[in-house]
Amino acid sequence: METEILNWLRDNLPEHLRLNLGIGDDAAILDWSLSPHCLITTDMLSDDVDFRWGIDSPRAIGHKALAVNLSDLAAMAVKPVAAVIAIAIPHPTLLQDIGQLYDGILSLASQFDVAIAGGDLQVWDGPLSITITALGEPTQNEPLRRAGAQPGDGIIVTGAFGGSILERHLDFLPRVQEALLLNSQYRLHAAIDVSDGLSLDLARLCEASRCGAVIDLETIPVTNAARQLATSSSGEKTALEHALGDGEDFELILTGANDEIDRLINEQPLKIPVTRIGTITKQLGLWNGIAGVPKEALQPRGYVHGQQEMS
Amino acid sequence: METEILNWLRDNLPEHLRLNLGIGDDAAILDWSLSPHCLITTDMLSDDVDFRWGIDSPRAIGHKALAVNLSDLAAMAVKPVAAVIAIAIPHPTLLQDIGQLYDGILSLASQFDVAIAGGDLQVWDGPLSITITALGEPTQNEPLRRAGAQPGDGIIVTGAFGGSILERHLDFLPRVQEALLLNSQYRLHAAIDVSDGLSLDLARLCEASRCGAVIDLETIPVTNAARQLATSSSGEKTALEHALGDGEDFELILTGANDEIDRLINEQPLKIPVTRIGTITKQLGLWNGIAGVPKEALQPRGYVHGQQEMS
Repeated sequence: METEILNWLRDNLPEHLRLNLGIGDDAAILDWSLSPHCLITTDMLSDDVDFRWGIDSPRAIGHKALAVNLSDLAAMAVKPVAAVIAIAIPHPTLLQDIGQLYDGILSLASQFDVAIAGGDLQVWDGPLSITITALGEPTQNEPLRRAGAQPGDGIIVTGAFGGSILERHLDFLPRVQEALLLNSQYRLHAAIDVSDGLSLDLARLCEASRCGAVIDLETIPVTNAARQLATSSSGEKTALEHALGDGEDFELILTGANDEIDRLINEQPLKIPVTRIGTITKQLGLWNGIAGVPKEALQPRGYVHGQQEMS
Repeated sequence: METEILNWLRDNLPEHLRLNLGIGDDAAILDWSLSPHCLITTDMLSDDVDFRWGIDSPRAIGHKALAVNLSDLAAMAVKPVAAVIAIAIPHPTLLQDIGQLYDGILSLASQFDVAIAGGDLQVWDGPLSITITALGEPTQNEPLRRAGAQPGDGIIVTGAFGGSILERHLDFLPRVQEALLLNSQYRLHAAIDVSDGLSLDLARLCEASRCGAVIDLETIPVTNAARQLATSSSGEKTALEHALGDGEDFELILTGANDEIDRLINEQPLKIPVTRIGTITKQLGLWNGIAGVPKEALQPRGYVHGQQEMS
């Protein structure tokens, strides 16, 4: 099976301007003459943790495996350049399913102009697991970090939150173009992508920046999926609670000086809505409140699963 | 458990000159100002395929997981710079064993000055699996490829071959320094590392270079481990057969113009022996013979397991 997959890949992996030497040697050679920095991130997605092999579509699983990596690069506001793919394949598996899995990866790679520089594959007795490592490079602006937020900063988010489990966690588009555009047109201070929950990831940004945040709960953009979950799941959680804690929204949280954020919100430069949800504060912790004035403490909630991302 | 491991990593991952931003953000930032090229390779090692979790020492398994990647970079004669580590950990596992696993990785990383730029980890119901992605950069010389061999080239190998299963497959040192030194002091044409078997990997180098090779079987350096296997395993294979086909030797095969190879062999510039084993020929295939004159066809043999490396 591996030989068939490899032959398929050799025929189907497109050439790429940045790929001086692709699969078939001991390492791939990338042209890295455009930037003095190289950003790297790696994400492992596994059956029964991040997707359900045999239930979810293999193409969607492949899409997600690359998309979560691109979302990490979007969170730093850098351009994705290349990726390598390691897949452990359970025995037996239909070759056709693996083809569709790669198809999901390659299609997203093509959309974001990412060179697939190689990988590794293995048929084994364990469940399906995919590890993709992606490289990115800064454009004309410095990468955004979690640690740059300053008291007084406005906090904005792209898109809306909650209920991703209904569909979006598998087919979301990483906010790469949005991050690059925002970072080029506005002076921003900090960013993070929402992988584990809006409130949890905002708390992480605050912790890295050694500050706190007051958010106005009334302004949180809530998805229809979150509302749907709130009405269908015997009212265990409100739509707002889903929005604050569900995870896998893969939207961006960004901060910048108050005036700059006002200008950004006013101009709405993206095709998707950007919403101001609060203000960074010197006082630590997450708070519900208006105009930077804390009223009550918020407990950060999110999906702290058996997976811990380090970069 | 993941939180404990992450805390341990935050305390134990050393700083590195090339690591502008390490673990704790969405991606790591590497200084890549020294070279206009970035080489990338990824290897997945799994329980019961590449090691035996619970039998082999966790430290040795960690060592091997990074070493196979560094060996791929050595095969291109480039300097390793950084690596990221993704580990799927079976539940339950002793924290101490995972600590030793990382210790094996970090110790080798330190020895080869490799920045650990982050990773991902996950506790799951599957077996242990480690995927490491390593980045490297050329030094003053061009990377060596598989495809550069020319008819008339001398073929040399580092070290000796066979019987790695007895021990060396877990504790080998990747031939990074050796490759860099040879590529800086001699004009070489092609290289590959021996991961799957001397004859099989030589055949791959020949295939990539669209040529063949005549090797003098008398000159193949054979390890004591290969001899030991030949005498102990009811004589199923000779020591030479072990040397030609065992795999996981992680030595290098290199080629260069005849005169240059003569000079290299004469000077013996490495601490380990370098041996000339044959000559690249226009005639395709692998042959046993002397001085480039084929006598009989050799069947390439090696370990074609459930794993196929693409880069």
